[in-house]
Amino acid sequence: MSAVACPAVVMGRDEALRGDARFDVVGIGNALVDVIAQAPDSFIEEHGLVKGWMDLIDTERAVQLYQALGSAVEMSGGSAANTMCGIASFGGAAAYLGKVSNDELGRVFGHDLLAVGVQFRPGVHVDEVPTGRCIIVVTPDAERTMNTYLGASSLYCATDVDDAAVAAGRVLYMEGYLFDRPEAKAAFRHAAAVAHDAGRMVSLTLSDSFCVDRHRDDFLSLVADDVDLLFGNEAELLALYQTDSFDAAVAELRRHCPLAAITIGAKGSIIIDGDAVIQVPPVPVRKVIDTTGAGDLYAAGFLYGLTSARPLEECGQLGSIAAAEVISHVGPRPLVELKSLV
Amino acid sequence: MSAVACPAVVMGRDEALRGDARFDVVGIGNALVDVIAQAPDSFIEEHGLVKGWMDLIDTERAVQLYQALGSAVEMSGGSAANTMCGIASFGGAAAYLGKVSNDELGRVFGHDLLAVGVQFRPGVHVDEVPTGRCIIVVTPDAERTMNTYLGASSLYCATDVDDAAVAAGRVLYMEGYLFDRPEAKAAFRHAAAVAHDAGRMVSLTLSDSFCVDRHRDDFLSLVADDVDLLFGNEAELLALYQTDSFDAAVAELRRHCPLAAITIGAKGSIIIDGDAVIQVPPVPVRKVIDTTGAGDLYAAGFLYGLTSARPLEECGQLGSIAAAEVISHVGPRPLVELKSLV
Repeated sequence: MSAVACPAVVMGRDEALRGDARFDVVGIGNALVDVIAQAPDSFIEEHGLVKGWMDLIDTERAVQLYQALGSAVEMSGGSAANTMCGIASFGGAAAYLGKVSNDELGRVFGHDLLAVGVQFRPGVHVDEVPTGRCIIVVTPDAERTMNTYLGASSLYCATDVDDAAVAAGRVLYMEGYLFDRPEAKAAFRHAAAVAHDAGRMVSLTLSDSFCVDRHRDDFLSLVADDVDLLFGNEAELLALYQTDSFDAAVAELRRHCPLAAITIGAKGSIIIDGDAVIQVPPVPVRKVIDTTGAGDLYAAGFLYGLTSARPLEECGQLGSIAAAEVISHVGPRPLVELKSLV
Repeated sequence: MSAVACPAVVMGRDEALRGDARFDVVGIGNALVDVIAQAPDSFIEEHGLVKGWMDLIDTERAVQLYQALGSAVEMSGGSAANTMCGIASFGGAAAYLGKVSNDELGRVFGHDLLAVGVQFRPGVHVDEVPTGRCIIVVTPDAERTMNTYLGASSLYCATDVDDAAVAAGRVLYMEGYLFDRPEAKAAFRHAAAVAHDAGRMVSLTLSDSFCVDRHRDDFLSLVADDVDLLFGNEAELLALYQTDSFDAAVAELRRHCPLAAITIGAKGSIIIDGDAVIQVPPVPVRKVIDTTGAGDLYAAGFLYGLTSARPLEECGQLGSIAAAEVISHVGPRPLVELKSLV
């Protein structure tokens, strides 16, 4: 099935976005609590980390890294969860689907969603595996290097999907990070089918070029079959289409996906809307403190704009505003109400 | 027994501070993880809180307040633990005695001490009660209002005291907050005896004027019998001596305690050294963000100065430097190495 056969596209983007809906956006992702600490560049080298990337780690490695790490701060994170909080902070209605354990960090995660008005649908109860966490090392250049112990979040599967919530959201937003297990892929396919059956739009963020490398064929078929709106950065897009040429990647993307918003670091973002390309400048930041959440919050601004019927260029600008706020402080979620910045 | 009979005073302050010691300071207090959230002034009123104070809360109240609270950040806290981290940040050697549970927050608490080089002696293992936490509401005026669920921390008792650690520290530092239970009072008396037997100095912080009100007689006798150095703020000192006159309180204090460092908010601090009084100006802060930890870090600077054989005026200045750092950001512990600010 090609993208042009997607129900949302058949009925038209505007129709999909305009219908009655309880939620503007429903997100699915790895439910993680971030453990954030500053560290010198030498920490990255000593522990064999790759700066700027996300690495999946097991319990033993998590314990070892945490022991080596300086004093840390715990904050709820998780890529799609950060995005949903951003949407709520703009004034949008968001729900989040992801798995935590029945432990203290699981309660912290749930609290921090509800506290900003995001509905949390955790799926089937988990006891035996702890809530996932992401050890984030922030170096003096403000770059974040992530080490994720997935824990309970990796148990998310198709039967955890709250079909009613997905059907009640104008846009489904899926986080590529979750894609590392077959059960999660099945959950994505199921959620996308539910959304499309309800005439909704389906979006995906590629999340990480290593993750794209690990699961390229599955990502390619998901994008071609089910995705109406793709988020990603330049590196992820190049990884998806295995090319060094951004233009070649964009040409491929156009064949498979009707709409995409691609961030290009400090240069802002570009929106690819069929044959049209819209350049969106970044919002300047006095001092970049911690880039964690930049892409997540860009997506939040874009999705809030889209579901509040704004032109695509304005959607991109809202993305730039939200990303600028989150990189100007430690932590992956906004510290001020984003609606106050519009 | 009056203060002049204290071993540390008999042998002289310099002698007590100069001897061989593994630790500069050994602290005892409530081991708590802080749950910090910004909230408007209306939150304080709606929930019947008293701005700027610490209130002890039970499980039910903790659940209710946390539910009402916005998105929060978790960071290790605890008054005396913050002080020990400050001493380590100046380059001093510190140990901490306090009780946590065998749970995730307990591990976070222990990690964050070790990560900055503070030795942690948690006493007898606890399973059945969760690690204590302090829900801190920060209002737009940067004032913090604290609601403490003591949990495991309140189980600290005399048999938990690591006598060898106490005897190995030049100064014992005790947090008045812990004083709310008879077992903790016994632990303080025991620790003070161990310290004095080893020729060490004993210090106490009054912590909170409500706590002083609740246990005035016990505080008065502890100060008179065992305390060589008293920390507190103006309100706490007035509460201790039940007077509205600062001069009258200072006159009383002089009769009972040979040395005291009293903070007076934005006006800095005064050091009362027998008949002498030293005024210490504050260090200006561009913007006060969160006053949590101000008193704790003042004590850290003072104690670091004292145990590194500096004149009292300089001890007070180090206190002002550390307090200024901690109130210029969210969280109760320094974000930069305090030794870099000296």
